[in-house]
Amino acid sequence: MKARYRRLTDPDSALHSLLERVGPKGKMDAERIPAERAAGRYTAEAVFAAISSPPYHSSAMDGIAVVSEATVGASPTTPKVLTSPGQAVPIDTGDPIPEGYDAVVPVEVVNPAEGGFEIQAAAPARQHVRLTGEDMVAGEMILPGGRLLTPAHVGAMLGAGVTSVAVRRLPRVAILPTGDELCEPGQDPSGGKVIESNSRMLAAFVRQWGGEPVRLEPAPDDVGELTRAVRGALDDGCDVLLVLAGSSAGRDDYTPQLFENEGDLLFHGLTMMPGKPTAAGMIAGRPVIGVPGFPVSAAVAADRLLRPLLAHLLGVAPGRAERLDARLARALASRPGLEEIIRVVVGRFADGWVAAPLGRGAGAITTLSRAHGLISVPPASEGLAAGSQVRVDLLVPVHVLEQGLLLAGSNDLALSVLDDMLGAKSPGRSLNVSPLGSLAGLAALARGEAHLAGAHLLDPETGVYNTTDVARVLPGREVALVTLAHRQQGLCLRPDDERDPKDLAGVIAANMRWVNRQPGSGTRVLTDHLLAKTGLDPGSLAGWDHEEFTHVAVGEAVRSRAADCGMLILAAARALGLRFVPLAEERFDLVIPREAFGDDRIQTLIEVLRSPAFRERMEGLGGYDGRETGKVQCLPEGTWSASSAYLF
Amino acid sequence: MKARYRRLTDPDSALHSLLERVGPKGKMDAERIPAERAAGRYTAEAVFAAISSPPYHSSAMDGIAVVSEATVGASPTTPKVLTSPGQAVPIDTGDPIPEGYDAVVPVEVVNPAEGGFEIQAAAPARQHVRLTGEDMVAGEMILPGGRLLTPAHVGAMLGAGVTSVAVRRLPRVAILPTGDELCEPGQDPSGGKVIESNSRMLAAFVRQWGGEPVRLEPAPDDVGELTRAVRGALDDGCDVLLVLAGSSAGRDDYTPQLFENEGDLLFHGLTMMPGKPTAAGMIAGRPVIGVPGFPVSAAVAADRLLRPLLAHLLGVAPGRAERLDARLARALASRPGLEEIIRVVVGRFADGWVAAPLGRGAGAITTLSRAHGLISVPPASEGLAAGSQVRVDLLVPVHVLEQGLLLAGSNDLALSVLDDMLGAKSPGRSLNVSPLGSLAGLAALARGEAHLAGAHLLDPETGVYNTTDVARVLPGREVALVTLAHRQQGLCLRPDDERDPKDLAGVIAANMRWVNRQPGSGTRVLTDHLLAKTGLDPGSLAGWDHEEFTHVAVGEAVRSRAADCGMLILAAARALGLRFVPLAEERFDLVIPREAFGDDRIQTLIEVLRSPAFRERMEGLGGYDGRETGKVQCLPEGTWSASSAYLF
Repeated sequence: MKARYRRLTDPDSALHSLLERVGPKGKMDAERIPAERAAGRYTAEAVFAAISSPPYHSSAMDGIAVVSEATVGASPTTPKVLTSPGQAVPIDTGDPIPEGYDAVVPVEVVNPAEGGFEIQAAAPARQHVRLTGEDMVAGEMILPGGRLLTPAHVGAMLGAGVTSVAVRRLPRVAILPTGDELCEPGQDPSGGKVIESNSRMLAAFVRQWGGEPVRLEPAPDDVGELTRAVRGALDDGCDVLLVLAGSSAGRDDYTPQLFENEGDLLFHGLTMMPGKPTAAGMIAGRPVIGVPGFPVSAAVAADRLLRPLLAHLLGVAPGRAERLDARLARALASRPGLEEIIRVVVGRFADGWVAAPLGRGAGAITTLSRAHGLISVPPASEGLAAGSQVRVDLLVPVHVLEQGLLLAGSNDLALSVLDDMLGAKSPGRSLNVSPLGSLAGLAALARGEAHLAGAHLLDPETGVYNTTDVARVLPGREVALVTLAHRQQGLCLRPDDERDPKDLAGVIAANMRWVNRQPGSGTRVLTDHLLAKTGLDPGSLAGWDHEEFTHVAVGEAVRSRAADCGMLILAAARALGLRFVPLAEERFDLVIPREAFGDDRIQTLIEVLRSPAFRERMEGLGGYDGRETGKVQCLPEGTWSASSAYLF
Repeated sequence: MKARYRRLTDPDSALHSLLERVGPKGKMDAERIPAERAAGRYTAEAVFAAISSPPYHSSAMDGIAVVSEATVGASPTTPKVLTSPGQAVPIDTGDPIPEGYDAVVPVEVVNPAEGGFEIQAAAPARQHVRLTGEDMVAGEMILPGGRLLTPAHVGAMLGAGVTSVAVRRLPRVAILPTGDELCEPGQDPSGGKVIESNSRMLAAFVRQWGGEPVRLEPAPDDVGELTRAVRGALDDGCDVLLVLAGSSAGRDDYTPQLFENEGDLLFHGLTMMPGKPTAAGMIAGRPVIGVPGFPVSAAVAADRLLRPLLAHLLGVAPGRAERLDARLARALASRPGLEEIIRVVVGRFADGWVAAPLGRGAGAITTLSRAHGLISVPPASEGLAAGSQVRVDLLVPVHVLEQGLLLAGSNDLALSVLDDMLGAKSPGRSLNVSPLGSLAGLAALARGEAHLAGAHLLDPETGVYNTTDVARVLPGREVALVTLAHRQQGLCLRPDDERDPKDLAGVIAANMRWVNRQPGSGTRVLTDHLLAKTGLDPGSLAGWDHEEFTHVAVGEAVRSRAADCGMLILAAARALGLRFVPLAEERFDLVIPREAFGDDRIQTLIEVLRSPAFRERMEGLGGYDGRETGKVQCLPEGTWSASSAYLF
């Protein structure tokens, strides 16, 4: 249809070409600011002590300043009384040593005596005396250039008589959103609008990376207006310009052409996903970056190009995330030729860390906002096998992750409540869900890739939940089933839909388009069971192959008319304003291996689960019954018991 | 003399008692702020999506929206032309899927055709369509309470239609300096004044730890005025009050008594060094902390008590430093009964990290500002043996430390210049000195505890520098001696001293008080040599046992009249404004093991060393001659050569 990327560039070469064009001269100027407000800034040049510290001989202790010669011969058997003043005077820590005195005896070993002080040991010259300049000497370099200033540096500078410091000016990063479709946060985006969130997210990144963001008014999809906006931003003196969206291959994407017209286009298109539609150029001596429109793409592109660019402008090494090595929980297919950046949640296990991939949609900001870290699948790779060792660049500090629980399997709205209340009870702790469906969750537990699983798997033979599948997937393993809740499953319909099915037969009869859940999910098992029970053929449900992975996705498909009916829990239907036709009550259990059961985090989780406050919040969601919430069943039956000692 | 600490409390129990008194009710209230400015703040409650995202079915690609049914049967051999509009319409990434269409075909596989578009593959329903709510569904919890908000969270909130968020109010920390001796930064502290730097350093820590500092006017050492100041600070609504200094056992230390008078004193004195003179109490329902006056003590006390207190008030887990395990370079004696916090610099070696302790003076802020991390010697320990494994709580990120070089041995002012220029040439790289003296530096190299050593060791027999001692301390090891400089050593005298010694004999004759260097330092070796050469008895120098560890310490002792004369380099004498009597020129070498010589950091270091700019800056210090700076001598002679390939 139209010219696409001329040639994709690998991200490292792209960065290199950008930094090379900016060059060493591109560094920010120095500005002089008060030393006491300089923490977080970078020194532009070396800092030298203006005065010595301490500025005079001073006492390192509370006690008495003494004339050392007068103390000679003092011992426990031959204590000596020093006359005061003359041979000794009281002194506090930090006080200057008075003229004529040359040592300090600490208060602990001094006894008041008639006319002075008694001591029981000689004090050699300079004992407990901080000599002038012991810490810093006037003229000494106390900090080189290019250093991040910390609070301790503030203390050192002020102590050395340095009241102002030359730091690199904050790079001003102008952020220009583009596109006719944009609306402001708070406005209604229905009808094809897009909430302009990326400029705000990028502004927050710029602040975090040591720059000063300047958000500009969005420019429409018009070459003339866009050109004027870009020129205006550069005329106003920004150091870097980000042009948001407009750098993919769509009809309205003028940015790369604009870079070429106004300056030099350095590259357009990266061998990286997300972030492929990134461009950069130099206009009027300043670097300009065309940032992709999908939020995850924008964040990844900024991390790869803008973060090191800002470090370059500040004359420092780019920051690097804390890292850890982890075992990959699931296989990841990947497109050769493109580096893929995968968002993961991680959990700590006895044999190391496990990384579970989240979704891959570049438009899904929650895959980033919920992520604990990022892994990179190199361009030469066609993917990574389950169990591969991967390096995770962390977005959350390790010590927080150590407090996290990783739950694989079925997701449930009540699990969010549990996470929220767990963190409130025990700050730093969290429950992180890797949503896989009930059966896959048990399999993850079997592989040691989750601390616990969420499952609601009906055994159609017995009508009992979870025990059969646990015995099958985790044969012989000792686990506890801890009831989360009983909950209502049923059909959801749009309120304005005049069709009124009472059951699955009714859905088929009304020829409604079905939205299904994926195989292995508890809801799919229930659907299959209900169909089988009544002898219905799944093929007779229109849209049987339209599969979604969550309750809310099913509900949203119905709400947005992508389908007419699906099976989900009442709470999801209610959240989406859908009509609900109850079909079954099911039990949702947390499946916890015996060896994890005594874990402090699990015990706190169960404590929260059993609290009246949790039951109240959960039941408030609708469709939940907490009559057995927190009940523990140990499997295989009779082999072990979660004694009350375990609980609380 | 007076009542000291009644009972020392261990820091963990002290913190526990403080947090318990503050209690869970002490948490900050929530305040609602714009979501776009919320990065860096902590959520006070869970955040729920206000709208679904995407808010409508939208295209995930640039291309054409199609009616999936119309694409059935298309293949490379049987391409199909879709009429436009009707069966296909152009669409860009993010655009809503128009009514009647249900799939997207990417631009890459579309050919324009008469009246429409040609495709060569069928498009199943929902292909490349982002369904409404695929990312977030209205009502879904997108964030629990108690979470640090990141830029990605800002993106997620705005995308979910959330424009404001309830975060914990910043805890207001009032900081009250106390003491008659205080002067403001910029004022002359001579005559017993102390620059009031601690309140500024602590204010920077408070900001870093998520609080809002409020510096108050210093209060004098007067119980009445101090009481009024404390009451005023609490009346003004602070959440935490820090009372600086005044909590040791000196004559003017009223703070603990004041806490007791105005509220409850929880503890006074910690089993911790530095930081022992710390006190805390509760006044008017607010925690108050008496912070010690020495800057390192203040920083350590704040880290132990204030940092977790602020986390508690914010309802989050306290942050924890990145950590690493290291081998301790030197034995550390420690006082049993007190936990000691030791500042260290670290370096990375083939077999792991090495931690070299810095000085221990609580008044020496540079031991903290230069430190890479802290290690803790537990109270039950009498010390740690050299080579012990220690855990280092880092103050500098690991990735920066990986770029650092650790130099043990003699220090020199030119090494600061080298550090400064190394970092400027190659941001992030640094040269970190563990000042031990020349001989101890060679020994550290022998033990693999330094990347390079600094030495100026004269062999009196041959008059040659360093080769003899290298062969003795590093027998058989292949090393390069790289000349830093030739430099002037000589006597320093106060300019107003009328005595005028021309050499050491003159110093003895004038009965001047000598200040010596420690044994094993190159300067001490030179002093011994010069004395021996002229047959003088060291004992005839008054003050022979007054030993200092650096050139500037020797100079400062003379300048401040603690001594009258000492041996040092010209640059140090000049920096201190002392008169200088040259006695000898010596060579200062960097000693670099062959296996480290090819290291990229070492090569860059040598490159900087050989630059005219370095020579110019170094010679500008005075007393330096760069005629052989950067010259490489490989030892043992004839065994290896640093080929030019190694260099650059």
